[in-house]
Amino acid sequence: MGDKEQRVAVTAEQAQEIAELRANKQETRRATVPEIEDILYEAFPVLDHGFLRVIDYMGDDAAIVQAARVSYGRGTKKVREDRGLIRYLMRHRHTTPFEMCEIKFHVKLPIFVARQWIRHRTANVNEYSARYSILDKEFYIPDPAVLAAQSHANRQGRGDVLQGQEASEVLRLLREDAERCYAHYREMLNEDEAGNILDESRSGLARELARMNLTLNTYTQWYWKTDLHNLMHFLSLRGDDHAQYEIRAYSEVMLEVLKRWLPLTCEAFTDYRKEGAFLSRAALAVLNRLLDGETVTAANSGLSAREWRELMAVLGREKAVDD
Amino acid sequence: MGDKEQRVAVTAEQAQEIAELRANKQETRRATVPEIEDILYEAFPVLDHGFLRVIDYMGDDAAIVQAARVSYGRGTKKVREDRGLIRYLMRHRHTTPFEMCEIKFHVKLPIFVARQWIRHRTANVNEYSARYSILDKEFYIPDPAVLAAQSHANRQGRGDVLQGQEASEVLRLLREDAERCYAHYREMLNEDEAGNILDESRSGLARELARMNLTLNTYTQWYWKTDLHNLMHFLSLRGDDHAQYEIRAYSEVMLEVLKRWLPLTCEAFTDYRKEGAFLSRAALAVLNRLLDGETVTAANSGLSAREWRELMAVLGREKAVDD
Amino acid sequence: MGDKEQRVAVTAEQAQEIAELRANKQETRRATVPEIEDILYEAFPVLDHGFLRVIDYMGDDAAIVQAARVSYGRGTKKVREDRGLIRYLMRHRHTTPFEMCEIKFHVKLPIFVARQWIRHRTANVNEYSARYSILDKEFYIPDPAVLAAQSHANRQGRGDVLQGQEASEVLRLLREDAERCYAHYREMLNEDEAGNILDESRSGLARELARMNLTLNTYTQWYWKTDLHNLMHFLSLRGDDHAQYEIRAYSEVMLEVLKRWLPLTCEAFTDYRKEGAFLSRAALAVLNRLLDGETVTAANSGLSAREWRELMAVLGREKAVDD
Amino acid sequence: MGDKEQRVAVTAEQAQEIAELRANKQETRRATVPEIEDILYEAFPVLDHGFLRVIDYMGDDAAIVQAARVSYGRGTKKVREDRGLIRYLMRHRHTTPFEMCEIKFHVKLPIFVARQWIRHRTANVNEYSARYSILDKEFYIPDPAVLAAQSHANRQGRGDVLQGQEASEVLRLLREDAERCYAHYREMLNEDEAGNILDESRSGLARELARMNLTLNTYTQWYWKTDLHNLMHFLSLRGDDHAQYEIRAYSEVMLEVLKRWLPLTCEAFTDYRKEGAFLSRAALAVLNRLLDGETVTAANSGLSAREWRELMAVLGREKAVDD
Repeated sequence: MGDKEQRVAVTAEQAQEIAELRANKQETRRATVPEIEDILYEAFPVLDHGFLRVIDYMGDDAAIVQAARVSYGRGTKKVREDRGLIRYLMRHRHTTPFEMCEIKFHVKLPIFVARQWIRHRTANVNEYSARYSILDKEFYIPDPAVLAAQSHANRQGRGDVLQGQEASEVLRLLREDAERCYAHYREMLNEDEAGNILDESRSGLARELARMNLTLNTYTQWYWKTDLHNLMHFLSLRGDDHAQYEIRAYSEVMLEVLKRWLPLTCEAFTDYRKEGAFLSRAALAVLNRLLDGETVTAANSGLSAREWRELMAVLGREKAVDD
Repeated sequence: MGDKEQRVAVTAEQAQEIAELRANKQETRRATVPEIEDILYEAFPVLDHGFLRVIDYMGDDAAIVQAARVSYGRGTKKVREDRGLIRYLMRHRHTTPFEMCEIKFHVKLPIFVARQWIRHRTANVNEYSARYSILDKEFYIPDPAVLAAQSHANRQGRGDVLQGQEASEVLRLLREDAERCYAHYREMLNEDEAGNILDESRSGLARELARMNLTLNTYTQWYWKTDLHNLMHFLSLRGDDHAQYEIRAYSEVMLEVLKRWLPLTCEAFTDYRKEGAFLSRAALAVLNRLLDGETVTAANSGLSAREWRELMAVLGREKAVDD
Repeated sequence: MGDKEQRVAVTAEQAQEIAELRANKQETRRATVPEIEDILYEAFPVLDHGFLRVIDYMGDDAAIVQAARVSYGRGTKKVREDRGLIRYLMRHRHTTPFEMCEIKFHVKLPIFVARQWIRHRTANVNEYSARYSILDKEFYIPDPAVLAAQSHANRQGRGDVLQGQEASEVLRLLREDAERCYAHYREMLNEDEAGNILDESRSGLARELARMNLTLNTYTQWYWKTDLHNLMHFLSLRGDDHAQYEIRAYSEVMLEVLKRWLPLTCEAFTDYRKEGAFLSRAALAVLNRLLDGETVTAANSGLSAREWRELMAVLGREKAVDD
Repeated sequence: MGDKEQRVAVTAEQAQEIAELRANKQETRRATVPEIEDILYEAFPVLDHGFLRVIDYMGDDAAIVQAARVSYGRGTKKVREDRGLIRYLMRHRHTTPFEMCEIKFHVKLPIFVARQWIRHRTANVNEYSARYSILDKEFYIPDPAVLAAQSHANRQGRGDVLQGQEASEVLRLLREDAERCYAHYREMLNEDEAGNILDESRSGLARELARMNLTLNTYTQWYWKTDLHNLMHFLSLRGDDHAQYEIRAYSEVMLEVLKRWLPLTCEAFTDYRKEGAFLSRAALAVLNRLLDGETVTAANSGLSAREWRELMAVLGREKAVDD
């Protein structure tokens, strides 16, 4: 998170508000994690105009152990024992102790990403209201390096990056359409972002209606709060190769946050969930035969051709296939 | 629902699929409601291109009573007693028996409405995937009668309907921008809706990216399933005067569905929730004084000016205020 | 909470663990509330052997405002403006900003109370496991002052307090049965609480089976975490006169915690929810007629006899009736 | 489910109510599954006095496909294609289409089992109220064949079955304590199950208090409704070897119900979830080495001794270990 390029995600005024917030420290008896305190309120740039900020957190690795043991104090147990218990809980899917930690983010993100994100229902959300306020003039325009063609192998994936004329034409269309739609949004509102009337002879369309003219790459923002169990579920699904690049970009920053906040949990999550995989009955049978010293191939595996390819892909031995 | 104007919400081919589905009847031992069977699978038009279809339902008024009593059979109780119990449960907010009924809708709706709708988290959703498929060329363009100006009293509401030149200009912009963005969406995809390649020399942008060029009034569709308790919560919030007209249009059709499906519950819901109101401690004190024969006015009510106006609005004695 | 009688809710060893925890302070940038820091980790006695401890919290009154405004800093707004917005949000049931605060409790409570409590599903729970560990020998025996007879007016309520011989007999039975069942639990386990084998010639019944011999007034304990919106829902339902006294006792301590933690929210909650009431369409019509200067009585109110009595009860003008 | 021994789970009167319910058939346009209609409302015995009844269901295998495709009709697709899509969805954890089916059970179960069951929060529940009504005199007494000793390897599991004197003593204690507590419950209530006053000179303790004298093996009952996705989650966790035998007994009957209701889904669930397993990063590395033809043993696996044993157990090559 330190080596992010210097994209400017917030205005000077917002940066000032954030700096004031960060300057203010209090004493607390609560479980506190210095590594996440270090980055509290800071805006980490994501995509071209988005960001992710940690606004608040509850709990630390020891709090998970404390809840799992329903203990009165934090105990005198050693980090080594805490690590062992956390790994045990993760491995055996004892999920309730992980629900005892909570985190709150402020996120700025394109609307089409917000539409995927909101599908995670076990979370609390406060979104900027376009019924009540005027949205900023900011749109997501993909970096040319991620401007991918439709995949042919996978109907919901990306293929090669677009090149030359086609790429520049796409970027031009995305930019021009977003800008034109925004200009008309303002015209229909009959107001600029600062709330100044543009033309006294007109009434101005209701905000809740005018917004419908905006394109789906317009940025919105929200406060989003979730517990650790559901955060890890989000990171599993949205950090996966099959997730759309744009939401994965947020997920990756959140994984960095998790590493700072709860290092033992993050390690266990990586070992047992993120980089593990669910194998079917038939795939376990393959493993059994391998342990017996048999040579197993696609042909004699008992798996369908697709399932064999999927298994190889999970093991990193072959490119993922899907459709 | 019978007197809806004949807007065409589905294509001839879809109408044919629906007719086939409706022609097919089976025997069941389950609780069955003829009045909702009558309309099963039918597409009720909402807004200009949207619809709402009931796909499935579970339970009837008697099932609520059965669950509340944890009974073995449906009992021999009379409708009159069922009505009394349902009204009692509604009045006293005993919500769990209402969770025992379930309904599944297929809804076609503009994306900006879908964004409000999805905030109701206790529901199951399957949305048409714009990562996987190409969206249809259909946008919501408001009827001139609901093309309202921004309210000045209420920052998140509508004022008077736009007139003349301003109205026609707004409609022109909405239509042209939506169409242009859609045309460019197709161009970037390098495919038409039927999946035919437009230009063999180009690769075509990934669907998950191209969709970001669409405007928020583009129609999407989903299967949405919820239990009766959460349905009534939706109807309370989204059928309220403060709800945006466009989502209220769906809510009103759903209320008609509820009336057919569960007439006793719908009646109790109307009496005790939809047309009732929550009064504050201070408002109850006003009521107490009125019962004592006092004359209470805004000035001597002990309520703030705004709260007095809100109370009058709740009683239908004055126009709602809000901001 | 300061004037609680000195019931001993924790052992000397637990009190020591708690004291150590409380002695430990760190610096934080997070929203911090000194009034709740003061009581962090302390065990507030509830019933005869139960307690409630605040283990952690997230957010303060200003955090609600910050989320409602989706702001970058805490702002320079005055408390007076925060209060106005919080009251507005509460009055208009804009619930999402209240979900942005979170609280975690450690609670010791009788099993029959835990069974009511767990019905609040939007919360995180880690209960002491009787499959894994041996439960302590502690049972709830009601104070004679709350040892009530069955209500005849209300099938799910309490009537007058039992007296004399009947009362002492009930207390004797409750105590003896709980103790005998516990003694047999230990005998079947073939272990004492410290894990010492009682009789080397026996195997000892599995813990997960032996526990079934315990009575429902046995104490269990759990960590319970919820967001503020759901906490207030709990306080509304479980702090109500219709709630069972034993769970209300916990709810009352939690309301005191809320007052310390979020004074503005607690005030708004009290005014607009706890001491307000939902009135039906028919009850609002009564209010309308009263405002018009009419004299309304039970007879001419248009309400059923029962609904009139319920309305009077809500206004504190008559004893509640219910069945 | 057909070859269950003839334990009597319902009274003659209840059986009569059920028979009447089953005799009643209606026409419906809804998705209907004859194999589950066959068993609708029937009481399948579980444990000594418990049962599970299917009260209602929504959807069939084709409904999952219909929702996944957001289609207008049921389509003319073949069962073979439906099967392929369902297996794909299951394998890739596309869970939302499975949420489109719903099932409602009536369950009679011991309170200590109900306490485990209720931890599944995404479900709707109506439990028989012991505040309002008098519980029946029925307790769970384990069959001698499942009366297991505490496991020493696994602190939350069972070891060998108790024998001889120890077994009979345990059964005697369980039976006598439950009966004595129930007799005192009735005495404190001063009422028999039929509501007759026992002693006119006494008031009778409130039901909500008297119930606390009952033991945790007393039977309760509830209506429990959930969607298919959460049902399968329940079946995964509660049908697992690590689940307590008594809840597993219910889970097994529910799996039989699933097989009748949604045969394609049940098959996919069995192959990809119930009899599959999640493997860690390190375990996948073992698999990779095996595919490369290496001989991998506990010693050179890179797994801890415990994780190796857990992997062998998952493959059925060694007895499960756990603690």
